[in-house]
Amino acid sequence: MTSPLRLGIAGIGTVGVGVIRIVQRHADLLAARCGRPIQITAVSARDRSRDRGVRLGEYAWEDDAVALARRDDVDVFVELIGGDDGPAKAAVEAAIAAGKDVVTANKALLAHHGQALAEAAEGAGGVLRFEAAVAGGIPCIKVLTESLAGNEITRVMGVMNGTCNYILTRMESAGLTYDAVFQEASDLGYLEADPTLDVGGIDAGHKLALLASIAFGTKVDFGAVKLEGIERISIDDINRAADMGFRVKLLGVAQMTGRGLEARMQPCLVPAASPLGQLEGPMNMVVLEGDSVGQIVLRGAGAGEGPTASAVMSDVVEIARGQRLPTFGQPASGLATPRPAEANTPAPYYLRMVLKDRPGALAKIAACLGAEGISIDRMRQYDHAEGSAPVLIVTHKAMRSGLDAAIAAMAGTDVLESEPVALRIEDV
Amino acid sequence: MTSPLRLGIAGIGTVGVGVIRIVQRHADLLAARCGRPIQITAVSARDRSRDRGVRLGEYAWEDDAVALARRDDVDVFVELIGGDDGPAKAAVEAAIAAGKDVVTANKALLAHHGQALAEAAEGAGGVLRFEAAVAGGIPCIKVLTESLAGNEITRVMGVMNGTCNYILTRMESAGLTYDAVFQEASDLGYLEADPTLDVGGIDAGHKLALLASIAFGTKVDFGAVKLEGIERISIDDINRAADMGFRVKLLGVAQMTGRGLEARMQPCLVPAASPLGQLEGPMNMVVLEGDSVGQIVLRGAGAGEGPTASAVMSDVVEIARGQRLPTFGQPASGLATPRPAEANTPAPYYLRMVLKDRPGALAKIAACLGAEGISIDRMRQYDHAEGSAPVLIVTHKAMRSGLDAAIAAMAGTDVLESEPVALRIEDV
Repeated sequence: MTSPLRLGIAGIGTVGVGVIRIVQRHADLLAARCGRPIQITAVSARDRSRDRGVRLGEYAWEDDAVALARRDDVDVFVELIGGDDGPAKAAVEAAIAAGKDVVTANKALLAHHGQALAEAAEGAGGVLRFEAAVAGGIPCIKVLTESLAGNEITRVMGVMNGTCNYILTRMESAGLTYDAVFQEASDLGYLEADPTLDVGGIDAGHKLALLASIAFGTKVDFGAVKLEGIERISIDDINRAADMGFRVKLLGVAQMTGRGLEARMQPCLVPAASPLGQLEGPMNMVVLEGDSVGQIVLRGAGAGEGPTASAVMSDVVEIARGQRLPTFGQPASGLATPRPAEANTPAPYYLRMVLKDRPGALAKIAACLGAEGISIDRMRQYDHAEGSAPVLIVTHKAMRSGLDAAIAAMAGTDVLESEPVALRIEDV
Repeated sequence: MTSPLRLGIAGIGTVGVGVIRIVQRHADLLAARCGRPIQITAVSARDRSRDRGVRLGEYAWEDDAVALARRDDVDVFVELIGGDDGPAKAAVEAAIAAGKDVVTANKALLAHHGQALAEAAEGAGGVLRFEAAVAGGIPCIKVLTESLAGNEITRVMGVMNGTCNYILTRMESAGLTYDAVFQEASDLGYLEADPTLDVGGIDAGHKLALLASIAFGTKVDFGAVKLEGIERISIDDINRAADMGFRVKLLGVAQMTGRGLEARMQPCLVPAASPLGQLEGPMNMVVLEGDSVGQIVLRGAGAGEGPTASAVMSDVVEIARGQRLPTFGQPASGLATPRPAEANTPAPYYLRMVLKDRPGALAKIAACLGAEGISIDRMRQYDHAEGSAPVLIVTHKAMRSGLDAAIAAMAGTDVLESEPVALRIEDV
């Protein structure tokens, strides 16, 4: 197998340019490692005239990604267009139908259509790989699918949106409000065109849905991921969590419980001294737990030209070397339909609220918790002014359903100034 | 390809038992993930009568590992005997000659004979895999060989001997001397029969030599790894490093320089807040750096039944799935002969010494450094008694060769109470 592997690259943005640079710069290295050359034969993008700082003249150009996907001189269709529908989906479908292998960095596409695309690819004898779709340069798809294949996976966790991690760690280090750092992130170009994809947890939720599918042998079910964004995290939360030895992270957790598959992407408190707690800036971290291996922690850049292109090339090299794995580690047609479970494994909770400064207010709150069988581990009332009292409560282990009932009951007591913020304290 | 993959397991110690447990417990999971069953057909060990807490009656027994390696009903020979020579080597050679694939956890064997064994295996059309040989459950071989295959690797680093990391972190947390914690580790059964393999850096050096071969496409050359153990690290070093925001780690570093391949396994100072600095107890960490991906950090258990067996199974699953990679990521016959370079990339150094308490002593030491062009960043003289003065110096960036010359010159000044301890401060 020494014939060249021929790539068609659709989408020449940041990541596409990165892939082209690697193929051009490391032609010899790649040929030595793969036992055959890797070539780009054709590319497509919306704007042919734009200077992208990389040589494109030697490649055939297609205006239409679908036409690129069908070219006879393309073995592997590399989809770097993005978006969960439209041209990316049409082109990937066309590539599969034409018997091509597909490599994509598109988490939204796979979170919504991964099951159908994987079944189509496997039915056509093609492979569909997506290392770059989850956590950028971190090789979590390969590690989970291959390195931990001898394990029953017990839990997967991850900080998988670098922008959110940047915002949360920058709030703490600079003592800035959420709004101020959000603006900063926007000015730095860190945010998606629709920032809800980042700060609403949607982008990271897509990634968690893909990891959960491999981990638990279930069909991708993005709708089953409980999503909660970081928009309500205040500098007070950051500071008070830090006082108690915690950091706030937008953390995804998926685990199989007796009740079904629990998957949630939400702001959580983690110990400041843990690997997750130590993660600063726009970095990503994926934590994989298996019954034999224990805990494996993977840390790296979750975005950017080089890291994401490195992950794309990992899939390309895999195909060049003749490794042909099912998309989610076992045949897609045999994946189980997940039974989504309420996110309700017991955990301690952090509860921040502002009470009206009147006698008996705290007692009423405590009674609401007590009525749901939730006991209080620690409670602090902070300095206050203007008739309102900030209160912080850390509960003992509680069910989220009980906590939500207690919070609903609190709303009826007329002692709350605003809706309480409740954050799970994750055992990492 | 739905016929069972048949394993013959030689060596039924901790790891062998772990592998057998996984194959028995996860038969269905493995069959789903591999597309075919994984079976054990035969085993061998020295003592047939010992109760190992696992069912063995269903497997054929061989007293001789070489006989096991040649059995017709074995597809993959799993070598878990250990040792760089003797029965492990003979059996692996026999398995290769008989056309079997081989999975081994034996770093000593591969560090000494990996090149010859890889060439033999590849010549015979077999594969030889060794994920479990480096850093236990951490999937560093697969990540380096496959996930980072699009990168020129610029540096690999690792804390890869859990016993040494246990000793160094326990000295700090408990304030105990090296000798006291060494005894503790011995009592806990953490030490090899010959403890020099651990504390002398040999075991970790074997692992670094294997990583370097994959990273830089060079033949395994254990002799080129500069080894320095942790035996001379005192509780004073631990405490003084901590005072300055550092931790002492037995750290392996391999990097390609203009002078050749630099590989060293030695105690180093790393920032206490870095992932390497944060690594506690018997854990392992591997840090891989590539020109596109940047830095990838992998953390997990470096030893033990479950983690090591998980890594063995990763290789077994790879073979079951039909993935057939060259041992070191490209054909062994084409690996370059490394040009070993002196470990001489510039770095700041930590220098601890005890001076005779007499006028001008410090000036003489400073003069020795100055004569080699080494400037001093920080210097502290500690409280002293009985006519001797503990002194700590942190240099600006210096070459190790210059530092060694300065230390040799110091010996001629007659102001040293004992030989100085010099530790590189690694930029991690």
